Amino acid sequence: MPLTANDPSRKSWLNVPKDSDFPIQNIPFGVFITKDDVVTIGTRIGDYAIDLGALQQLNYFEGIELTDDMFMQDTLNDFISDGKKTWRLVRNRIADLFDVTNNELKDNEEHKAVVIFNMEDVEMQLPVLIGDYTDFYSSREHATNVGIMFRDPENALLPNWLHLPVGYHGRSSTIVPSGIPVHRPYGQTLPPGAEKPVYGPSKLVDFELEMAFITTDANVMGEQIPVEEAEEHIFGMVLFNDWSARDIQKWEYVPLGPFLAKNFASSMSPWIVTLDALESFRTQGPSQNDPQPLEYLQQEGAHAFDIKLQVAIEPENGEETVISNSNFKYMYWSMAQQLAHHTVNGCRINSGDLMGSGTISGPTPDSFGSMLELTWGGKNPITLKDGTERKFINDGDSVIMRGYCENDEVRIGFGEVCSKLLAPYKK
Amino acid sequence: MPLTANDPSRKSWLNVPKDSDFPIQNIPFGVFITKDDVVTIGTRIGDYAIDLGALQQLNYFEGIELTDDMFMQDTLNDFISDGKKTWRLVRNRIADLFDVTNNELKDNEEHKAVVIFNMEDVEMQLPVLIGDYTDFYSSREHATNVGIMFRDPENALLPNWLHLPVGYHGRSSTIVPSGIPVHRPYGQTLPPGAEKPVYGPSKLVDFELEMAFITTDANVMGEQIPVEEAEEHIFGMVLFNDWSARDIQKWEYVPLGPFLAKNFASSMSPWIVTLDALESFRTQGPSQNDPQPLEYLQQEGAHAFDIKLQVAIEPENGEETVISNSNFKYMYWSMAQQLAHHTVNGCRINSGDLMGSGTISGPTPDSFGSMLELTWGGKNPITLKDGTERKFINDGDSVIMRGYCENDEVRIGFGEVCSKLLAPYKK
Repeated sequence: MPLTANDPSRKSWLNVPKDSDFPIQNIPFGVFITKDDVVTIGTRIGDYAIDLGALQQLNYFEGIELTDDMFMQDTLNDFISDGKKTWRLVRNRIADLFDVTNNELKDNEEHKAVVIFNMEDVEMQLPVLIGDYTDFYSSREHATNVGIMFRDPENALLPNWLHLPVGYHGRSSTIVPSGIPVHRPYGQTLPPGAEKPVYGPSKLVDFELEMAFITTDANVMGEQIPVEEAEEHIFGMVLFNDWSARDIQKWEYVPLGPFLAKNFASSMSPWIVTLDALESFRTQGPSQNDPQPLEYLQQEGAHAFDIKLQVAIEPENGEETVISNSNFKYMYWSMAQQLAHHTVNGCRINSGDLMGSGTISGPTPDSFGSMLELTWGGKNPITLKDGTERKFINDGDSVIMRGYCENDEVRIGFGEVCSKLLAPYKK
Repeated sequence: MPLTANDPSRKSWLNVPKDSDFPIQNIPFGVFITKDDVVTIGTRIGDYAIDLGALQQLNYFEGIELTDDMFMQDTLNDFISDGKKTWRLVRNRIADLFDVTNNELKDNEEHKAVVIFNMEDVEMQLPVLIGDYTDFYSSREHATNVGIMFRDPENALLPNWLHLPVGYHGRSSTIVPSGIPVHRPYGQTLPPGAEKPVYGPSKLVDFELEMAFITTDANVMGEQIPVEEAEEHIFGMVLFNDWSARDIQKWEYVPLGPFLAKNFASSMSPWIVTLDALESFRTQGPSQNDPQPLEYLQQEGAHAFDIKLQVAIEPENGEETVISNSNFKYMYWSMAQQLAHHTVNGCRINSGDLMGSGTISGPTPDSFGSMLELTWGGKNPITLKDGTERKFINDGDSVIMRGYCENDEVRIGFGEVCSKLLAPYKK
């Protein structure tokens, strides 16, 4: 029997450094520009970027039903549209092709020269054209922390929170890939004690540690996606920094929710790691017995994923300091529940839609997923390695998020999403 | 001097019925499918649909810089991207071509046969690929009514409302053109007095009378659009029915705003009427002296538009009853202020983004823009012509919204957005 793509004993003929997020068992999907200014869909093994457009032109996907230019595109949307069966066939083919026992490409220097690039020689792009972006609010610890700070410590969770995955719509136009810097936003705020709002740059710029999943086109308008089928429609996951301006948010968000406090930027990691690659890292999510959710949200089995997450701040020209260690498994609502809830009203889901988890906070103060929580609203500043303190994010700081799964046999990671906060925009 | 496109003395050699929304002074833009299954960009005069793709192929746009297939597309996004100068050149050319004094096309039977269709022989499509959809909440009367009903009659307007155009993100994937029916959504609600939520079809489906404007790509990320330049980036306007499920909304909307209560469907009129065509109908908006907005929102001149609006309900197989007469001029915040506010934080605006006004309610009870307000939460049902009562919208009802501007010389209208509420979706 041939090895599956996930088989931990598989090795690649491409060198994979120790502790790489990208062993041959990962095979994430992304879009990059080569040195020759060619845009292509690709994957990554170790520190090599692999041009799937070139592989397709060289007939390495023969036998898999794909449109001729499937991988010679600047987004993954069409490939994602093809559905899980195709994703698996392609992933398996790539795994076989780069397996240490396979000489087909390994011994073809001419082909290798046009297929394999050093990661440092390519420029990662946004991997999908994001139609709609939804952000959930599914970490119980995060919702509780925010409820304590902004509303009522006695009733920190609002009445609906344990009954449904609270979510809201975000803005797609300002989602950028890792590496693109972000300006501190201007906006309207009500200073403490003031009677009238003022205009100026936000003083409280924050990150939100999130993950996001990317969907395929799953339903027609009106049709629901049952919770037990939902994972079939999830292509994969990325790390996601949902930049937030807390002072703008506080003033604007009643009664219709956050708007300009969020839509100036969100940053995502460029490689989409498929759910298939994460299969070995399924785990039980938090208990949902008190209360039990309504039937359309009830799930059997393990639908959380054990993904270790880390946030670091790197000041301009300085050394980075890790400020939080969290885990995706803390999420109260699973991705399948989020997608089932999103479509319970018949809302149409398209290929390339992105759904954020909401801030992922763990149970302990060093696992919180935002400065708001880590410094408890600025009351307990964090000291960085260079001795400077942070209540929120300073101009020049880079925020770096990393995530990976690991067991005794294999490590599957997401790489990182890193973005620098710039001073307010000047023309 | 040649006549401008707006000149009220202009007449077309195409017949325009009395009280038509589409005289030669209008020249809206849309997308339709012809009987031969050709998708094309078009305009409308009287009850004729005009194929701009065919006109372009026949060289009627010679001298205007356009890509070769500008009008042979299934969305207006690329044309909108070309900017106001191009929109004007094209609109003026169309006005001249169909002017009663111009025989160029009028006398060419062969060309007319491939350019001009009866409206009843074409099928209107969504005119743009909507990237992001934002909904504002800019009618003071509506926000006050909702505040009285749901919060505190003494403090109906929240503290931020008079300082900024409150807005939030909506879902693009479920915006449909007039004529597409909509299913009553399922969802989670908390029945009055209940302790636990229940699942089932919404019992309180409502319309929201809105208008929406469509933008061109206006800025890079980080860059603001000043209020005085904002109208340059607005292509045109449509009628917009932002379907709402009030019972779902009430349970889900804290703290992040409406989500599934709104994203099951929004319906829009298919012809985009340009701001240029509405120029004669500018009027002064409500006074903004108490309080004055911050400087970035301050405007000189007339930035409201006098657009008469009407809502009717037509029961299945029944006669329609007009249930509300409102006007777009009641909006407290102008479109220019909305766009300036939306970009004050550097949020990127793309070609084809759609921004809804929020429910447009006038000062009197018969000018309210939703059943929620017209029946005051169901307390005062409306009696239709057939003798049946409505608290909200019934399965089988069509909701029809119409809008037009009129002075002594010309009437510029939007046609209608009509959509029928179907029973809950069944597979």
